[in-house]
Amino acid sequence: MPLTVTRFAPENVSTADLAEALTDPRPASYKLEYFDIPGTAALSRDILAYGGADWEHLSVANWPAESKSPFGVFPVLHITTASGTTFALPEAIVIDHYLAQKFDLLGENAWEEQLIKAYHLSSCYLRERLSSRVTWNYKSVMHKAMDLFLAQTLPIWIETHSKHLRDNGSNGHYVGNKMSLADLQTANSIDHFACLNRGDEIVAMIKACPEIWRVKETVDSEPRLQAWRQSEVYKRHIAASQAVFASTGVE
Amino acid sequence: MPLTVTRFAPENVSTADLAEALTDPRPASYKLEYFDIPGTAALSRDILAYGGADWEHLSVANWPAESKSPFGVFPVLHITTASGTTFALPEAIVIDHYLAQKFDLLGENAWEEQLIKAYHLSSCYLRERLSSRVTWNYKSVMHKAMDLFLAQTLPIWIETHSKHLRDNGSNGHYVGNKMSLADLQTANSIDHFACLNRGDEIVAMIKACPEIWRVKETVDSEPRLQAWRQSEVYKRHIAASQAVFASTGVE
Repeated sequence: MPLTVTRFAPENVSTADLAEALTDPRPASYKLEYFDIPGTAALSRDILAYGGADWEHLSVANWPAESKSPFGVFPVLHITTASGTTFALPEAIVIDHYLAQKFDLLGENAWEEQLIKAYHLSSCYLRERLSSRVTWNYKSVMHKAMDLFLAQTLPIWIETHSKHLRDNGSNGHYVGNKMSLADLQTANSIDHFACLNRGDEIVAMIKACPEIWRVKETVDSEPRLQAWRQSEVYKRHIAASQAVFASTGVE
Repeated sequence: MPLTVTRFAPENVSTADLAEALTDPRPASYKLEYFDIPGTAALSRDILAYGGADWEHLSVANWPAESKSPFGVFPVLHITTASGTTFALPEAIVIDHYLAQKFDLLGENAWEEQLIKAYHLSSCYLRERLSSRVTWNYKSVMHKAMDLFLAQTLPIWIETHSKHLRDNGSNGHYVGNKMSLADLQTANSIDHFACLNRGDEIVAMIKACPEIWRVKETVDSEPRLQAWRQSEVYKRHIAASQAVFASTGVE
Protein backbone atom coordinates (compact mmCIF):
# COMPACT_ATOMS: atom_id res chain seq x y z
CA MET A 1 0.00 0.00 0.00
CA PRO A 2 1.30 3.51 -0.78
CA LEU A 3 1.13 4.61 2.86
CA THR A 4 3.19 7.12 4.78
CA VAL A 5 3.34 5.80 8.34
CA THR A 6 4.08 8.58 10.82
CA ARG A 7 5.35 8.46 14.40
CA PHE A 8 3.04 9.35 17.28
CA ALA A 9 5.41 12.10 18.46
CA PRO A 10 8.76 13.62 17.45
CA GLU A 11 11.60 11.11 17.84
CA ASN A 12 13.71 13.41 20.05
CA VAL A 13 11.11 13.84 22.81
CA SER A 14 11.34 11.35 25.71
CA THR A 15 8.36 9.29 26.82
CA ALA A 16 8.65 10.95 30.26
CA ASP A 17 8.27 14.38 28.64
CA LEU A 18 5.35 13.11 26.55
CA ALA A 19 3.69 11.68 29.68
CA GLU A 20 4.03 15.08 31.34
CA ALA A 21 2.63 16.86 28.25
CA LEU A 22 -0.26 14.40 28.05
CA THR A 23 -1.33 15.05 31.63
CA ASP A 24 -0.67 18.83 31.55
CA PRO A 25 -3.89 20.30 33.01
CA ARG A 26 -3.60 23.58 31.05
CA PRO A 27 -5.69 24.00 27.89
CA ALA A 28 -4.13 22.56 24.73
CA SER A 29 -5.04 23.22 21.10
CA TYR A 30 -6.31 20.52 18.78
CA LYS A 31 -6.52 19.64 15.11
CA LEU A 32 -8.78 16.70 14.35
CA GLU A 33 -7.81 15.09 11.04
CA TYR A 34 -10.56 13.17 9.28
CA PHE A 35 -12.55 12.98 6.08
CA ASP A 36 -15.13 15.71 5.33
CA ILE A 37 -18.01 13.73 6.82
CA PRO A 38 -19.14 13.03 10.42
CA GLY A 39 -18.13 9.32 10.36
CA THR A 40 -16.14 7.99 13.30
CA ALA A 41 -14.81 11.48 14.14
CA ALA A 42 -18.29 12.80 14.92
CA LEU A 43 -18.17 12.14 18.66
CA SER A 44 -14.69 13.68 19.05
CA ARG A 45 -15.96 16.82 17.33
CA ASP A 46 -18.99 16.94 19.63
CA ILE A 47 -16.73 16.67 22.70
CA LEU A 48 -14.42 19.42 21.42
CA ALA A 49 -17.42 21.66 20.71
CA TYR A 50 -19.12 20.84 24.03
CA GLY A 51 -15.87 21.49 25.91
CA GLY A 52 -15.30 24.86 24.26
CA ALA A 53 -11.89 23.67 23.07
CA ASP A 54 -9.49 25.56 20.82
CA TRP A 55 -9.77 23.19 17.85
CA GLU A 56 -10.13 22.96 14.10
CA HIS A 57 -11.06 20.38 11.49
CA LEU A 58 -8.23 19.15 9.26
CA SER A 59 -9.20 17.35 6.04
CA VAL A 60 -7.42 14.09 5.21
CA ALA A 61 -5.33 14.40 2.06
CA ASN A 62 -6.08 12.07 -0.85
CA TRP A 63 -6.31 8.65 0.89
CA PRO A 64 -4.26 6.52 1.05
CA ALA A 65 -1.59 7.71 -1.38
CA GLU A 66 -1.02 11.20 0.01
CA SER A 67 -2.24 10.82 3.58
CA LYS A 68 0.05 10.41 6.59
CA SER A 69 -0.89 8.81 9.88
CA PRO A 70 0.35 6.30 12.48
CA PHE A 71 -2.01 3.48 11.41
CA GLY A 72 -2.86 4.51 7.84
CA VAL A 73 -6.41 5.31 8.99
CA PHE A 74 -8.31 8.22 10.53
CA PRO A 75 -9.36 10.05 12.75
CA VAL A 76 -6.08 11.31 14.20
CA LEU A 77 -6.07 13.98 16.92
CA HIS A 78 -3.07 16.35 16.70
CA ILE A 79 -2.39 17.98 20.06
CA THR A 80 -0.23 20.99 20.89
CA THR A 81 0.11 21.46 24.63
CA ALA A 82 0.53 24.74 26.52
CA SER A 83 4.28 24.06 26.71
CA GLY A 84 4.49 23.59 22.92
CA THR A 85 4.90 19.79 22.87
CA THR A 86 3.13 18.16 19.91
CA PHE A 87 1.90 14.62 19.52
CA ALA A 88 -0.81 12.64 17.74
CA LEU A 89 -3.38 10.18 19.03
CA PRO A 90 -5.00 7.69 16.61
CA GLU A 91 -8.03 5.42 17.17
CA ALA A 92 -11.42 7.01 17.85
CA ILE A 93 -11.91 5.29 21.22
CA VAL A 94 -8.48 6.40 22.48
CA ILE A 95 -9.19 9.95 21.30
CA ASP A 96 -12.64 10.01 22.89
CA HIS A 97 -11.38 8.67 26.22
CA TYR A 98 -8.62 11.31 26.23
CA LEU A 99 -10.98 14.17 25.36
CA ALA A 100 -13.66 12.96 27.79
CA GLN A 101 -11.11 13.08 30.60
CA LYS A 102 -9.99 16.59 29.55
CA PHE A 103 -13.53 17.95 29.44
CA ASP A 104 -14.94 16.34 32.60
CA LEU A 105 -17.18 13.78 30.89
CA LEU A 106 -16.20 10.71 32.95
CA GLY A 107 -18.36 11.21 36.06
CA GLU A 108 -17.39 11.88 39.64
CA ASN A 109 -15.24 8.86 40.55
CA ALA A 110 -13.52 5.71 39.23
CA TRP A 111 -16.72 3.65 39.35
CA GLU A 112 -18.76 6.19 37.40
CA GLU A 113 -15.92 6.34 34.85
CA GLN A 114 -16.16 2.56 34.30
CA LEU A 115 -19.94 2.73 33.89
CA ILE A 116 -19.70 5.62 31.45
CA LYS A 117 -17.05 3.83 29.39
CA ALA A 118 -19.20 0.66 29.35
CA TYR A 119 -22.27 2.54 28.06
CA HIS A 120 -20.11 4.38 25.53
CA LEU A 121 -18.59 1.16 24.19
CA SER A 122 -21.96 -0.60 24.05
CA SER A 123 -23.22 2.22 21.82
CA CYS A 124 -20.01 2.33 19.77
CA TYR A 125 -20.44 -1.35 19.09
CA LEU A 126 -24.07 -0.89 18.02
CA ARG A 127 -22.98 1.66 15.46
CA GLU A 128 -19.92 -0.32 14.34
CA ARG A 129 -22.03 -3.41 13.83
CA LEU A 130 -24.49 -1.48 11.68
CA SER A 131 -21.67 0.01 9.62
CA SER A 132 -19.86 -3.28 9.08
CA ARG A 133 -22.82 -5.56 8.55
CA VAL A 134 -25.25 -3.24 6.79
CA THR A 135 -24.03 0.14 5.53
CA TRP A 136 -20.75 -1.05 4.01
CA ASN A 137 -21.71 -4.64 3.30
CA TYR A 138 -22.38 -5.94 -0.23
CA LYS A 139 -25.52 -4.58 -1.89
CA SER A 140 -26.87 -8.10 -2.39
CA VAL A 141 -27.14 -8.73 1.38
CA MET A 142 -27.47 -5.32 3.00
CA HIS A 143 -31.26 -5.27 3.19
CA LYS A 144 -31.55 -8.61 4.93
CA ALA A 145 -28.68 -7.58 7.21
CA MET A 146 -30.70 -4.46 8.10
CA ASP A 147 -33.75 -6.60 8.85
CA LEU A 148 -31.66 -8.66 11.27
CA PHE A 149 -30.23 -5.50 12.89
CA LEU A 150 -33.76 -4.13 13.43
CA ALA A 151 -35.11 -7.46 14.72
CA GLN A 152 -32.27 -8.46 17.04
CA THR A 153 -29.28 -6.15 17.60
CA LEU A 154 -31.16 -2.86 18.07
CA PRO A 155 -33.91 -4.23 20.40
CA ILE A 156 -31.27 -5.64 22.79
CA TRP A 157 -29.51 -2.25 22.91
CA ILE A 158 -32.81 -0.40 23.45
CA GLU A 159 -34.07 -2.75 26.15
CA THR A 160 -30.84 -2.81 28.15
CA HIS A 161 -30.04 0.90 27.86
CA SER A 162 -33.58 1.98 28.74
CA LYS A 163 -33.50 -0.26 31.85
CA HIS A 164 -30.28 1.35 33.10
CA LEU A 165 -31.57 4.85 32.30
CA ARG A 166 -34.73 4.13 34.34
CA ASP A 167 -32.52 2.91 37.21
CA ASN A 168 -30.78 6.30 37.03
CA GLY A 169 -34.12 8.12 37.32
CA SER A 170 -34.90 8.74 33.62
CA ASN A 171 -33.24 12.15 33.98
CA GLY A 172 -31.64 12.40 30.54
CA HIS A 173 -28.26 11.14 31.79
CA TYR A 174 -26.75 7.67 32.04
CA VAL A 175 -24.81 8.32 35.25
CA GLY A 176 -25.72 10.73 38.05
CA ASN A 177 -27.19 14.03 36.96
CA LYS A 178 -24.37 15.19 34.74
CA MET A 179 -23.41 15.15 31.07
CA SER A 180 -21.00 12.35 30.16
CA LEU A 181 -19.29 10.60 27.26
CA ALA A 182 -22.13 8.05 27.36
CA ASP A 183 -24.82 10.72 26.84
CA LEU A 184 -22.92 12.35 23.97
CA GLN A 185 -22.31 8.98 22.27
CA THR A 186 -25.97 7.96 22.31
CA ALA A 187 -27.13 11.31 20.92
CA ASN A 188 -24.38 11.24 18.33
CA SER A 189 -25.25 7.70 17.22
CA ILE A 190 -28.89 8.72 16.72
CA ASP A 191 -27.73 11.65 14.56
CA HIS A 192 -25.70 9.16 12.53
CA PHE A 193 -28.61 6.75 12.11
CA ALA A 194 -30.82 9.64 10.91
CA CYS A 195 -28.53 10.15 7.87
CA LEU A 196 -28.74 6.50 6.75
CA ASN A 197 -30.84 4.76 4.15
CA ARG A 198 -33.67 3.16 6.23
CA GLY A 199 -32.35 5.16 9.19
CA ASP A 200 -35.90 6.42 9.78
CA GLU A 201 -36.83 2.89 10.91
CA ILE A 202 -33.97 2.87 13.44
CA VAL A 203 -34.75 6.35 14.78
CA ALA A 204 -38.47 5.55 15.12
CA MET A 205 -37.68 2.52 17.30
CA ILE A 206 -35.35 4.55 19.52
CA LYS A 207 -37.76 7.48 19.73
CA ALA A 208 -40.43 5.10 21.07
CA CYS A 209 -38.25 4.67 24.17
CA PRO A 210 -38.72 7.85 26.25
CA GLU A 211 -35.68 7.30 28.54
CA ILE A 212 -33.26 7.12 25.61
CA TRP A 213 -34.94 9.96 23.72
CA ARG A 214 -34.61 12.18 26.78
CA VAL A 215 -30.83 11.72 26.64
CA LYS A 216 -30.91 12.92 23.03
CA GLU A 217 -33.02 15.97 23.95
CA THR A 218 -30.75 16.79 26.89
CA VAL A 219 -27.65 16.70 24.68
CA ASP A 220 -29.37 18.65 21.91
CA SER A 221 -30.24 21.47 24.34
CA GLU A 222 -26.56 22.27 25.04
CA PRO A 223 -25.83 25.77 23.64
CA ARG A 224 -22.27 24.98 22.47
CA LEU A 225 -23.47 21.91 20.58
CA GLN A 226 -26.26 23.95 19.02
CA ALA A 227 -23.68 26.53 17.88
CA TRP A 228 -21.47 23.76 16.39
CA ARG A 229 -24.46 22.35 14.50
CA GLN A 230 -25.06 25.80 13.01
CA SER A 231 -21.47 26.08 11.75
CA GLU A 232 -20.59 25.88 8.07
CA VAL A 233 -18.14 23.01 8.63
CA TYR A 234 -20.78 20.90 10.40
CA LYS A 235 -23.41 21.58 7.73
CA ARG A 236 -20.93 20.69 4.99
CA HIS A 237 -20.09 17.40 6.69
CA ILE A 238 -23.76 16.47 7.13
CA ALA A 239 -24.54 17.26 3.47
CA ALA A 240 -21.56 15.15 2.34
CA SER A 241 -22.67 12.32 4.60
CA GLN A 242 -26.18 12.33 3.16
CA ALA A 243 -24.71 12.17 -0.34
CA VAL A 244 -22.48 9.23 0.64
CA PHE A 245 -25.29 7.37 2.40
CA ALA A 246 -27.68 7.83 -0.51
CA SER A 247 -25.83 4.96 -2.17
CA THR A 248 -23.89 2.73 0.20
CA GLY A 249 -23.11 -0.94 -0.08
CA VAL A 250 -20.35 -2.57 -2.11
CA GLU A 251 -20.93 -4.09 -5.56
CA MET B 1 -36.37 -10.18 23.57
CA PRO B 2 -36.56 -12.53 26.60
CA LEU B 3 -33.64 -10.85 28.35
CA THR B 4 -32.85 -10.49 32.03
CA VAL B 5 -31.03 -7.19 32.37
CA THR B 6 -28.91 -7.08 35.53
CA ARG B 7 -27.40 -4.16 37.43
CA PHE B 8 -23.65 -3.58 37.41
CA ALA B 9 -23.51 -3.78 41.22
CA PRO B 10 -25.90 -4.30 44.16
CA GLU B 11 -28.37 -1.43 44.47
CA ASN B 12 -27.52 -0.72 48.13
CA VAL B 13 -23.80 -0.02 47.57
CA SER B 14 -22.89 3.64 46.96
CA THR B 15 -20.87 4.72 43.93
CA ALA B 16 -18.21 6.04 46.34
CA ASP B 17 -17.86 2.58 47.90
CA LEU B 18 -17.74 1.00 44.44
CA ALA B 19 -15.06 3.47 43.37
CA GLU B 20 -13.01 2.48 46.40
CA ALA B 21 -13.53 -1.24 45.68
CA LEU B 22 -12.60 -0.75 42.04
CA THR B 23 -9.28 0.87 42.91
CA ASP B 24 -8.47 -1.44 45.86
CA PRO B 25 -4.86 -2.51 45.17
CA ARG B 26 -5.24 -5.86 46.98
CA PRO B 27 -5.81 -9.00 44.86
CA ALA B 28 -9.44 -9.65 43.91
CA SER B 29 -11.03 -12.84 42.62
CA TYR B 30 -12.66 -13.08 39.20
CA LYS B 31 -15.26 -15.05 37.29
CA LEU B 32 -15.27 -14.40 33.56
CA GLU B 33 -18.66 -15.27 32.07
CA TYR B 34 -18.68 -16.12 28.38
CA PHE B 35 -19.55 -18.84 25.91
CA ASP B 36 -17.40 -22.00 25.81
CA ILE B 37 -15.18 -20.70 23.02
CA PRO B 38 -12.26 -18.20 22.94
CA GLY B 39 -14.25 -15.46 21.09
CA THR B 40 -14.05 -11.93 22.45
CA ALA B 41 -13.18 -13.19 25.96
CA ALA B 42 -9.90 -14.73 24.79
CA LEU B 43 -7.72 -11.71 25.60
CA SER B 44 -9.24 -11.29 29.08
CA ARG B 45 -8.47 -14.93 29.81
CA ASP B 46 -4.88 -14.49 28.61
CA ILE B 47 -4.45 -11.48 30.90
CA LEU B 48 -5.89 -13.34 33.89
CA ALA B 49 -3.60 -16.31 33.18
CA TYR B 50 -0.56 -14.12 32.56
CA GLY B 51 -1.25 -12.16 35.75
CA GLY B 52 -1.55 -15.28 37.89
CA ALA B 53 -5.02 -14.15 38.97
CA ASP B 54 -7.47 -16.09 41.14
CA TRP B 55 -10.06 -16.65 38.40
CA GLU B 56 -12.41 -19.15 36.81
CA HIS B 57 -14.41 -19.53 33.63
CA LEU B 58 -18.19 -19.26 33.96
CA SER B 59 -20.31 -20.60 31.07
CA VAL B 60 -23.15 -18.40 29.80
CA ALA B 61 -26.55 -20.01 30.40
CA ASN B 62 -28.77 -20.70 27.39
CA TRP B 63 -28.63 -17.38 25.49
CA PRO B 64 -30.61 -15.14 25.46
CA ALA B 65 -33.58 -16.68 27.28
CA GLU B 66 -31.84 -17.84 30.47
CA SER B 67 -28.79 -15.59 30.53
CA LYS B 68 -28.44 -12.52 32.75
CA SER B 69 -26.16 -9.56 32.06
CA PRO B 70 -26.11 -5.75 32.02
CA PHE B 71 -26.22 -5.42 28.20
CA GLY B 72 -27.68 -8.79 27.19
CA VAL B 73 -24.29 -9.74 25.76
CA PHE B 74 -21.01 -11.26 26.95
CA PRO B 75 -18.21 -11.33 28.17
CA VAL B 76 -18.98 -10.06 31.68
CA LEU B 77 -16.28 -9.97 34.35
CA HIS B 78 -17.61 -10.65 37.87
CA ILE B 79 -15.29 -9.23 40.49
CA THR B 80 -15.12 -9.90 44.24
CA THR B 81 -12.70 -7.57 45.97
CA ALA B 82 -10.60 -8.31 49.06
CA SER B 83 -13.19 -6.45 51.16
CA GLY B 84 -16.02 -8.61 49.76
CA THR B 85 -17.63 -6.03 47.47
CA THR B 86 -18.97 -7.55 44.26
CA PHE B 87 -19.62 -5.91 40.91
CA ALA B 88 -19.67 -6.74 37.20
CA LEU B 89 -17.95 -5.14 34.23
CA PRO B 90 -19.34 -5.70 30.73
CA GLU B 91 -17.74 -4.87 27.35
CA ALA B 92 -14.50 -6.61 26.37
CA ILE B 93 -12.51 -3.38 25.96
CA VAL B 94 -13.57 -2.08 29.39
CA ILE B 95 -12.66 -5.45 30.95
CA ASP B 96 -9.30 -5.60 29.19
CA HIS B 97 -8.37 -2.02 30.18
CA TYR B 98 -9.30 -2.80 33.80
CA LEU B 99 -7.33 -6.07 33.90
CA ALA B 100 -4.35 -4.55 32.06
CA GLN B 101 -4.13 -1.87 34.73
CA LYS B 102 -4.39 -4.48 37.51
CA PHE B 103 -1.65 -6.67 36.04
CA ASP B 104 0.84 -3.96 35.02
CA LEU B 105 0.32 -4.21 31.25
CA LEU B 106 0.01 -0.47 30.48
CA GLY B 107 3.67 0.55 30.36
CA GLU B 108 5.64 2.88 32.61
CA ASN B 109 3.79 6.19 32.30
CA ALA B 110 0.70 7.95 30.89
CA TRP B 111 2.19 8.30 27.41
CA GLU B 112 3.12 4.62 27.14
CA GLU B 113 -0.41 3.77 28.32
CA GLN B 114 -1.90 5.78 25.44
CA LEU B 115 0.39 4.11 22.90
CA ILE B 116 -0.41 0.65 24.25
CA LYS B 117 -4.15 1.34 24.14
CA ALA B 118 -3.83 2.65 20.57
CA TYR B 119 -2.01 -0.50 19.38
CA HIS B 120 -4.49 -2.68 21.25
CA LEU B 121 -7.49 -0.95 19.66
CA SER B 122 -5.96 -1.04 16.19
CA SER B 123 -5.64 -4.82 16.54
CA CYS B 124 -9.11 -5.17 18.11
CA TYR B 125 -10.53 -3.38 15.11
CA LEU B 126 -8.67 -5.65 12.67
CA ARG B 127 -10.22 -8.67 14.31
CA GLU B 128 -13.67 -7.10 14.66
CA ARG B 129 -13.67 -6.12 10.99
CA LEU B 130 -12.81 -9.67 9.97
CA SER B 131 -15.54 -11.10 12.21
CA SER B 132 -18.23 -8.70 11.01
CA ARG B 133 -17.39 -8.56 7.33
CA VAL B 134 -16.15 -12.09 6.72
CA THR B 135 -16.65 -14.75 9.40
CA TRP B 136 -20.25 -13.87 10.31
CA ASN B 137 -21.30 -12.33 7.02
CA TYR B 138 -23.65 -14.08 4.57
CA LYS B 139 -22.21 -17.15 2.85
CA SER B 140 -22.85 -15.62 -0.58
CA VAL B 141 -20.37 -12.77 0.04
CA MET B 142 -17.91 -14.02 2.64
CA HIS B 143 -15.26 -15.23 0.21
CA LYS B 144 -15.03 -11.96 -1.71
CA ALA B 145 -15.07 -10.12 1.63
CA MET B 146 -12.08 -12.26 2.69
CA ASP B 147 -10.28 -11.39 -0.56
CA LEU B 148 -10.76 -7.69 0.23
CA PHE B 149 -9.56 -8.19 3.82
CA LEU B 150 -6.39 -9.92 2.56
CA ALA B 151 -5.78 -7.33 -0.16
CA GLN B 152 -6.45 -4.14 1.79
CA THR B 153 -7.28 -4.26 5.52
CA LEU B 154 -4.62 -6.72 6.63
CA PRO B 155 -1.71 -5.20 4.63
CA ILE B 156 -2.34 -1.77 6.19
CA TRP B 157 -2.28 -3.30 9.69
CA ILE B 158 0.90 -5.27 8.92
CA GLU B 159 2.74 -2.33 7.34
CA THR B 160 1.92 0.15 10.09
CA HIS B 161 2.45 -2.20 13.03
CA SER B 162 5.74 -3.51 11.68
CA LYS B 163 7.00 0.07 11.20
CA HIS B 164 6.24 0.97 14.84
CA LEU B 165 7.76 -2.30 16.08
CA ARG B 166 10.97 -1.54 14.15
CA ASP B 167 11.01 1.95 15.70
CA ASN B 168 10.90 0.20 19.10
CA GLY B 169 13.92 -1.93 18.21
CA SER B 170 12.19 -5.09 16.92
CA ASN B 171 12.50 -6.52 20.43
CA GLY B 172 9.22 -8.46 20.57
CA HIS B 173 7.38 -5.65 22.38
CA TYR B 174 5.35 -2.70 21.11
CA VAL B 175 6.42 -0.28 23.85
CA GLY B 176 9.70 -0.28 25.77
CA ASN B 177 11.09 -3.68 26.67
CA LYS B 178 8.14 -4.99 28.64
CA MET B 179 5.04 -7.12 28.10
CA SER B 180 1.88 -5.07 27.51
CA LEU B 181 -1.77 -5.29 26.55
CA ALA B 182 -0.70 -4.53 22.97
CA ASP B 183 1.65 -7.53 22.81
CA LEU B 184 -0.96 -9.90 24.27
CA GLN B 185 -3.66 -8.64 21.85
CA THR B 186 -1.54 -9.17 18.75
CA ALA B 187 -0.55 -12.70 19.79
CA ASN B 188 -4.14 -13.48 20.75
CA SER B 189 -5.49 -12.21 17.41
CA ILE B 190 -3.05 -14.44 15.53
CA ASP B 191 -4.27 -17.43 17.59
CA HIS B 192 -7.83 -16.47 16.61
CA PHE B 193 -6.97 -16.18 12.92
CA ALA B 194 -5.33 -19.62 13.02
CA CYS B 195 -8.70 -21.23 13.91
CA LEU B 196 -10.55 -19.67 10.95
CA ASN B 197 -11.47 -21.00 7.56
CA ARG B 198 -8.76 -19.51 5.26
CA GLY B 199 -7.00 -18.37 8.43
CA ASP B 200 -3.81 -20.01 7.11
CA GLU B 201 -3.65 -17.25 4.47
CA ILE B 202 -3.87 -14.56 7.17
CA VAL B 203 -1.27 -16.20 9.42
CA ALA B 204 1.14 -16.71 6.50
CA MET B 205 1.04 -12.97 5.68
CA ILE B 206 1.67 -12.02 9.31
CA LYS B 207 4.40 -14.63 9.75
CA ALA B 208 6.24 -13.07 6.79
CA CYS B 209 6.71 -9.95 8.94
CA PRO B 210 9.49 -10.80 11.45
CA GLU B 211 8.82 -7.86 13.81
CA ILE B 212 5.20 -8.90 14.38
CA TRP B 213 6.02 -12.59 14.56
CA ARG B 214 8.60 -11.86 17.24
CA VAL B 215 5.83 -10.38 19.42
CA LYS B 216 3.90 -13.64 19.03
CA GLU B 217 6.95 -15.72 19.97
CA THR B 218 7.69 -13.51 22.98
CA VAL B 219 4.13 -13.88 24.28
CA ASP B 220 4.10 -17.62 23.56
CA SER B 221 7.24 -18.12 25.66
CA GLU B 222 5.53 -16.91 28.88
CA PRO B 223 5.30 -19.91 31.29
CA ARG B 224 1.91 -18.94 32.74
CA LEU B 225 0.39 -18.63 29.27
CA GLN B 226 1.90 -21.96 28.29
CA ALA B 227 0.31 -23.53 31.38
CA TRP B 228 -3.08 -21.98 30.50
CA ARG B 229 -2.85 -23.35 26.96
CA GLN B 230 -2.25 -26.82 28.41
CA SER B 231 -5.38 -26.63 30.60
CA GLU B 232 -8.47 -28.69 29.87
CA VAL B 233 -10.70 -25.58 29.75
CA TYR B 234 -8.50 -23.92 27.14
CA LYS B 235 -8.29 -27.05 24.99
CA ARG B 236 -12.07 -27.50 25.17
CA HIS B 237 -12.62 -23.89 24.05
CA ILE B 238 -10.21 -24.24 21.11
CA ALA B 239 -11.86 -27.49 19.97
CA ALA B 240 -15.30 -25.85 20.17
CA SER B 241 -14.03 -22.86 18.23
CA GLN B 242 -12.65 -25.03 15.44
CA ALA B 243 -16.01 -26.81 15.21
CA VAL B 244 -17.85 -23.45 14.99
CA PHE B 245 -15.45 -22.00 12.44
CA ALA B 246 -15.63 -25.09 10.23
CA SER B 247 -18.90 -23.68 8.97
CA THR B 248 -19.39 -19.97 9.53
CA GLY B 249 -21.36 -17.49 7.49
CA VAL B 250 -25.09 -16.88 7.59
CA GLU B 251 -27.51 -18.40 5.08
